[in-house]
Amino acid sequence: MRCMRAIVAGNVVALAMSAAVAADNASLLKQAQQVFQPLPKDMSAPGTQASKAQIALGRLLFFDPRMTVDGNVSCATCHLPALYGTDGLSKSIGVQQRPHPRNAPTVLNSGLNTIVHWRGDRESLEDQASKALGSPITNGQPDIGAARDRLKRIPGYAPLFEAAFPGDAAPINVGNVASAISAYERTLVTPAPFDAYLAGSLDALSTSARTGLETFIKSGCTACHNGVGVGGGTYRKFGIVENYWAATGSQSIDKGRADVTNNPADLYVFRVPSLRNVAMTAPYFHDGSVATLPEAVSVMARVQLGRKLGDREVADIVSFLESLTGELPSEFATAPVLPPAAVIPAQH
Amino acid sequence: MRCMRAIVAGNVVALAMSAAVAADNASLLKQAQQVFQPLPKDMSAPGTQASKAQIALGRLLFFDPRMTVDGNVSCATCHLPALYGTDGLSKSIGVQQRPHPRNAPTVLNSGLNTIVHWRGDRESLEDQASKALGSPITNGQPDIGAARDRLKRIPGYAPLFEAAFPGDAAPINVGNVASAISAYERTLVTPAPFDAYLAGSLDALSTSARTGLETFIKSGCTACHNGVGVGGGTYRKFGIVENYWAATGSQSIDKGRADVTNNPADLYVFRVPSLRNVAMTAPYFHDGSVATLPEAVSVMARVQLGRKLGDREVADIVSFLESLTGELPSEFATAPVLPPAAVIPAQH
Repeated sequence: MRCMRAIVAGNVVALAMSAAVAADNASLLKQAQQVFQPLPKDMSAPGTQASKAQIALGRLLFFDPRMTVDGNVSCATCHLPALYGTDGLSKSIGVQQRPHPRNAPTVLNSGLNTIVHWRGDRESLEDQASKALGSPITNGQPDIGAARDRLKRIPGYAPLFEAAFPGDAAPINVGNVASAISAYERTLVTPAPFDAYLAGSLDALSTSARTGLETFIKSGCTACHNGVGVGGGTYRKFGIVENYWAATGSQSIDKGRADVTNNPADLYVFRVPSLRNVAMTAPYFHDGSVATLPEAVSVMARVQLGRKLGDREVADIVSFLESLTGELPSEFATAPVLPPAAVIPAQH
Repeated sequence: MRCMRAIVAGNVVALAMSAAVAADNASLLKQAQQVFQPLPKDMSAPGTQASKAQIALGRLLFFDPRMTVDGNVSCATCHLPALYGTDGLSKSIGVQQRPHPRNAPTVLNSGLNTIVHWRGDRESLEDQASKALGSPITNGQPDIGAARDRLKRIPGYAPLFEAAFPGDAAPINVGNVASAISAYERTLVTPAPFDAYLAGSLDALSTSARTGLETFIKSGCTACHNGVGVGGGTYRKFGIVENYWAATGSQSIDKGRADVTNNPADLYVFRVPSLRNVAMTAPYFHDGSVATLPEAVSVMARVQLGRKLGDREVADIVSFLESLTGELPSEFATAPVLPPAAVIPAQH
């Protein structure tokens, strides 16, 4: 009888516990839904719905290396599909071995970023694409028309530009190249397990990931990493509690947005990056100074929040961040077949 | 009555003509079948049947830029899926802007080549892959072990090498890297309309392509461009009737195989390239000195055969060559997802 009572009592305790767990789970989901939003299917800006022809053309241009000074660097050179739209480098290497000043962020979900570039010195994806075409590092040709002229020498592009920009008398121009590439980039959306969770599927996240989410919220990470991108929409000083370079071992100090605005308040201020697919896009921070995600989480907690996280807390947050990894869009993973042509003056 | 007779006579003529055309078509196919063979499904060397794990690993390694000195050049950098396994350049650009001495041939159907590299100075695909890992141009690290050590720093590779090379005590080694990449490359087979034609589907080739095939055979092109690869298996002097550099405008003269063998008989001797997918892989020749396929066909006829082809003959041969364009294998067009990790010592 005593044994029986113990079992009944045990079951009651178990029931009470599972009810408590269910309540906790529901509460966590509710908190998460207040802080984050799931990915939209279409990230086109209102009134800028791109045509299929523009998106398809943008995909070709994104993968085509023949616009640059030596014809060997494309958008996909630094934004590799195999590395989730990044290049695995601390700082990218541009044309003719010219160093990029900062780490290449992924192009995946880049349509979500209301701030473009680490220092916000681009107006839009279009502005980023067209400035890249005129950049000595990215393109290597001082005259922005040189990229356009290289495209004109590939006969297969003419009908594609005409179809994408009907009625345009001279459709092969830098503005249209930038529009098409941006239209393509806005399609690169990667719904992840976390989106299923936000839609109500509690099991889409492991217990560790849910614990990590809770720690992420409670620790204050969501002050910056929130919204649909889990970041990407605000500026913040990197190194609020201590200098970032002391924590990361950065060997050159980057003044960040202050160099753009000349405002002392912007010293060491950078865009808060989106954390979508962050588990696939090492190394981390504007200078790629930190190689692993656990280390990046620890550094962030220390220098931004003044918190020293335990190993278990870090591991759980990493589990949560892994739930932000979506599947590569097939139109990104799969390279298009480019119109064949050798555009390089034969260096024979 | 006269009219009636004329119609009957006309029909008889038409019947006789179509019978003649059919006989010609059958005869051309028969000739073609004597000269060429269709693609095999499996190009593994006998006794070297690679495992699925080896092929899958080789695919990752082919697309991974993190083995090279700056971590930014992979096999796919010069053998781009979007450009049918080539790079569109006269001569490829290696690590740190170092120039490759010759044009990058496509990796598609490279398992067919019994001669590897333009001068035949590689024993096999495996030898090519492992020499590339030790090359200052391709890899940039004088110690071949450096590439291996970079792989070891990507945790996700360890279990993949163990699965691909079971029983190997230290499976992450240069030999295994070369084996895996070669095993993957041997799967890159591109059956084309011409294979369907060889199998008996006359309609797989347009009338122009069939005329071009006939011209190709009658002109003597098949003396070198024959077999399953439509080339790829023999050496030949480039410039039999006249100097190649006079015809192509090449600005530096390449002695070819003579530099490898020190045999004067090998002066200006190169591998005869396979013509599969040639319409997609401009520019042409060992030095990429000729930008378009019609020009390449004309130059070949002139300098190898002493023939001046008419525009119609060239156009028909180009139609035939276009029938050698196959579909990109999906495991080539689609980039794999690489094990994430930053292997570069942070240059921050």
